[in-house]
Amino acid sequence: MERLRRVVLERLMRYYRLLAEMTAKEPMATITSAQIAEALDIDPTQVRKDLGAVGLQGMGRVGFDVCEVCRAIRIMLGFDQKYESVLIGAGHLGGALLAYSGFSAGFARYGLHVVAVFDNDRSKIGGKIAELTVKPMKEMKPLIKRRSIRLAILTIPAQVSQELTDRLVTAGVKAIWNFSPTQLTVPPDVLVRNEHISVGLSEIAYHLKQ
Amino acid sequence: MERLRRVVLERLMRYYRLLAEMTAKEPMATITSAQIAEALDIDPTQVRKDLGAVGLQGMGRVGFDVCEVCRAIRIMLGFDQKYESVLIGAGHLGGALLAYSGFSAGFARYGLHVVAVFDNDRSKIGGKIAELTVKPMKEMKPLIKRRSIRLAILTIPAQVSQELTDRLVTAGVKAIWNFSPTQLTVPPDVLVRNEHISVGLSEIAYHLKQ
Repeated sequence: MERLRRVVLERLMRYYRLLAEMTAKEPMATITSAQIAEALDIDPTQVRKDLGAVGLQGMGRVGFDVCEVCRAIRIMLGFDQKYESVLIGAGHLGGALLAYSGFSAGFARYGLHVVAVFDNDRSKIGGKIAELTVKPMKEMKPLIKRRSIRLAILTIPAQVSQELTDRLVTAGVKAIWNFSPTQLTVPPDVLVRNEHISVGLSEIAYHLKQ
Repeated sequence: MERLRRVVLERLMRYYRLLAEMTAKEPMATITSAQIAEALDIDPTQVRKDLGAVGLQGMGRVGFDVCEVCRAIRIMLGFDQKYESVLIGAGHLGGALLAYSGFSAGFARYGLHVVAVFDNDRSKIGGKIAELTVKPMKEMKPLIKRRSIRLAILTIPAQVSQELTDRLVTAGVKAIWNFSPTQLTVPPDVLVRNEHISVGLSEIAYHLKQ
């Protein structure tokens, strides 16, 4: 099967979130592509095309079975699997992510489990964030190898992140969720997902300027 | 002039960040569209088209003047203006954003200044995050009106955010930077920028599944 492009994956995630949110408010059996499209401000043809890409076809005017849509997206995106991960950087942002991931409605429902937190700041090592004890960096590589961890979440300052990335890749990590404000270089089989919070400001500042 | 689409604004922001990062490492006078394209994994034609949209033309093989590119993007996106804003929700994520915005390399360089933090949790009111004292929600509307604040940043639980949004809009807010996991309804002249951190997980889980 053809690999789905990032924009398609992101839209599937938005459909999934929307349905989870809507059904939490009010039970519903079916939804039309037009309803999804309107709620998310996306073209209805695009919605049908994306759902088609995960093997779903609407039932005429009735639309799509909500459970079936959720199930198909979960399987396609891989949320039915479990991913252990490590978080590196026990600062504010690391704490925010862990607090979020600790919610029942948090990251666990996407398969993500943070099993350890590392930092090189002595004043943080030994302390707790969420329910995890902050560990020294020297324990990072052995733990990643021992538990065959493939995902690392980076919430550290820019200046140390490339060196750290190299160490993570050597240890066997295959995906990096990067909240550090820097571009990382990795081998072709490793995915870096950059979350640049400030990208959102481009749209906001432009809107306020008008 | 035609309004730029969100995807274009986001790419301009990425060019801006890249140039800021590159010149911080090593002074450079010019850059080619091919260099920008390679660093960000974008098509070079797209880069030239985007820079053309902000009135820039490359000088043959030499490429673009870095300062001119940065200046044109700053002006186009509105980073040369100053936006006072309020942050609502003094939890982990609010703290992380304020810590980030407090960095000299933080939000201020995009024109954004957070001037007040609000929360309805009595145990938080009166406390400090970054250098700001957390205020009770009842002071929010008068402050927004008095200082003509047009931007609000939401880092609160989903269940209260629509009601709060309505109050913000009534007070005069024209843009909402929404980190709450919910869809907000606003009048057409108000922009909502949704930051759904978990969207990134779609790409990561899909990659790890392969």
